[in-house]
Amino acid sequence: MSAITTPDGFVAAGVHVGLKESGDPDLSFLGTDDGRAVSAAGVFTANKLAAAPVQVSKAHLTATAGLASAVIVNSGNANAATGPTGLAHAQDMCRLAAHEFRCQPEEVLVCSTGLIGIPLPFDLLESGIPKVVAARSRRGGGDAAVALLTTDTARKEALFSGSNFTVGAMAKGSAMLEPNMATMLAFITTDAALSPSGVQRALTTAVGRSFNRLTVDGAQSTNDTVLALASGAAGDVDPVEIQAGFDSVCQDLALQMADDGEGSTKTVIVRVQGARSDEEAAVAARAVANCQLVKCSWYGQSPYWGRVAAQVGASGVAFDPDLVSVAYGGVVTARNGVAAPHDEAAISRLYAERRIPITVDLGLGAGHAEIITTDLTHAYIDENMGKS
Amino acid sequence: MSAITTPDGFVAAGVHVGLKESGDPDLSFLGTDDGRAVSAAGVFTANKLAAAPVQVSKAHLTATAGLASAVIVNSGNANAATGPTGLAHAQDMCRLAAHEFRCQPEEVLVCSTGLIGIPLPFDLLESGIPKVVAARSRRGGGDAAVALLTTDTARKEALFSGSNFTVGAMAKGSAMLEPNMATMLAFITTDAALSPSGVQRALTTAVGRSFNRLTVDGAQSTNDTVLALASGAAGDVDPVEIQAGFDSVCQDLALQMADDGEGSTKTVIVRVQGARSDEEAAVAARAVANCQLVKCSWYGQSPYWGRVAAQVGASGVAFDPDLVSVAYGGVVTARNGVAAPHDEAAISRLYAERRIPITVDLGLGAGHAEIITTDLTHAYIDENMGKS
Repeated sequence: MSAITTPDGFVAAGVHVGLKESGDPDLSFLGTDDGRAVSAAGVFTANKLAAAPVQVSKAHLTATAGLASAVIVNSGNANAATGPTGLAHAQDMCRLAAHEFRCQPEEVLVCSTGLIGIPLPFDLLESGIPKVVAARSRRGGGDAAVALLTTDTARKEALFSGSNFTVGAMAKGSAMLEPNMATMLAFITTDAALSPSGVQRALTTAVGRSFNRLTVDGAQSTNDTVLALASGAAGDVDPVEIQAGFDSVCQDLALQMADDGEGSTKTVIVRVQGARSDEEAAVAARAVANCQLVKCSWYGQSPYWGRVAAQVGASGVAFDPDLVSVAYGGVVTARNGVAAPHDEAAISRLYAERRIPITVDLGLGAGHAEIITTDLTHAYIDENMGKS
Repeated sequence: MSAITTPDGFVAAGVHVGLKESGDPDLSFLGTDDGRAVSAAGVFTANKLAAAPVQVSKAHLTATAGLASAVIVNSGNANAATGPTGLAHAQDMCRLAAHEFRCQPEEVLVCSTGLIGIPLPFDLLESGIPKVVAARSRRGGGDAAVALLTTDTARKEALFSGSNFTVGAMAKGSAMLEPNMATMLAFITTDAALSPSGVQRALTTAVGRSFNRLTVDGAQSTNDTVLALASGAAGDVDPVEIQAGFDSVCQDLALQMADDGEGSTKTVIVRVQGARSDEEAAVAARAVANCQLVKCSWYGQSPYWGRVAAQVGASGVAFDPDLVSVAYGGVVTARNGVAAPHDEAAISRLYAERRIPITVDLGLGAGHAEIITTDLTHAYIDENMGKS
């Protein structure tokens, strides 16, 4: 697949410039096919320790009132907590890309992902950026998707075909509001004709329905960024259909991220229903999804519903212990607050799958929400105890 | 040590009645030496899925206006999420103990700890409670402290000698507001003469300064309970000194709990200073202490300060990336938001210790707070992935 360059009007590339010692690709480029600036939008981390590239991309979108012609992305170093030097490096990445691509520096957006607090080896980018811009093509989407990756084990792409337009997307990492250290980056292209505010509206809505419903470990990255560009090549589109397209690729990528969560063996979809409101359901579902103990029980393939119910009880939402029910897949393990006899073989069959739905019914109202998460495993610890 | 029976006026015992398959002691009794009801107070979990014994102990303290003559505690089963039958069992535990001890059922407080959602095998308690009450003695404090334990690897006791009084204490588990599944229980005795409201005041203050500053995994148990009884045998005491006594035994036990945190290899004291207020410092310190990624880095003996700073940035408190500094022990690893050259051998020496102080200075104000926590390890996962 070469999803990001499937919509008309885009070119991309991915190359190795030396940021990753492994020799894997580590620099991606995405641009319009004619160098023209098009409608663009972004959703960024709320972390106050926002990385230099986040600050620069935000400033550029403001300066252009929502136009961009290119995106330059490095993996292997987050350029976060790097002070004024880091900020200058992020600006210089845009300047170098703009020089090669023959656009204005403000029309270039920039992202970085990798470890925090380590100065960017800028000489590698100085020689690498001309290389990646020169390598751009209509078939370069797959290479661009690979060069984004850090601890990911698979590239992540998604496509949506509308009646008269296409949406393509690529991503790396784990989550938006609560990702793991590896940062979540996602890029969306479409050939639909949209205004800058139209792109922003569709993107913000889609992020709220996808990446913001995904949590791996409750931590929020310094670099999280989702960017979208609309070339306009396909002309006007139905606003409902374009929203469905943005929602579809974002939800697809969110599930791919969970499936590839660091060291995880399970993707768990925690659904809370019967809450007093959708908001309370989301709070309760997130409390379950972020609980270390519950995550360990999934890894152990245990139907330990008592701890799931206890997390809801501790989450602060309206809760009656005598009304709560818990089901693993279709198997009810607790009803009205006490253990329910159930088929243990059915639990074992359920846990043989990668994706595990767990439903907590509070029995109080019509509020419901879903949060996607992963289990907590020995391999997660191995990946995150590193000395660097 | 036999801490809980060191203050004048108390007897205790611990026996095995069969709740633990291991054959380890699993039923504790604590009472006044003459069966008289004395001033008593409690601090309980805020979890809405409060276990049956929590509900019963609260009701009894209300009914007696803060008097109690005995406490009965079982380990091996939490009697939580057990419905009306569980509630009847907790009441029956008090009734049986009262019958043997010749006091009123309302003068008995009750605690349980172990797995959630499993019916209590009550026949074992019916035969066991007379046994444990009969076994009570002035030297029984150590046995009582052992029979509380679940996944603990060591018994936890503390003593404070005032000028004319003594405070003794015993505990099991990990934390108050945010303990691990094994529940936190603590019991304090003193021979000081205090009113029921005087005991409650000293206890609430001490818990806020100790157990509520300890977090192992951010989860809140259904059974957490701290109880205190004051026999009055030593007469009137200085109010400042008795508070110091309660604070001392609670802080001592909190550190013992962290040192014995499930599967942990490090006790980490996260200090945030330079915050806009003490409250903001506590929010930031807790965000660092509860972060899975940061906990893994401690296990890996890594000085990965970038992730520590990122957690503070995500915590919502006032934060300027250019002012933040981070130190491991006395070793400054970041100053003014960027990496600081430091002695790696000093970091290695620091990590050879069990207790690791980490200081984050926000450079904004005079607010400060400390949270005690542990690292996240393979052994933690092993202990919590169980199929039960």
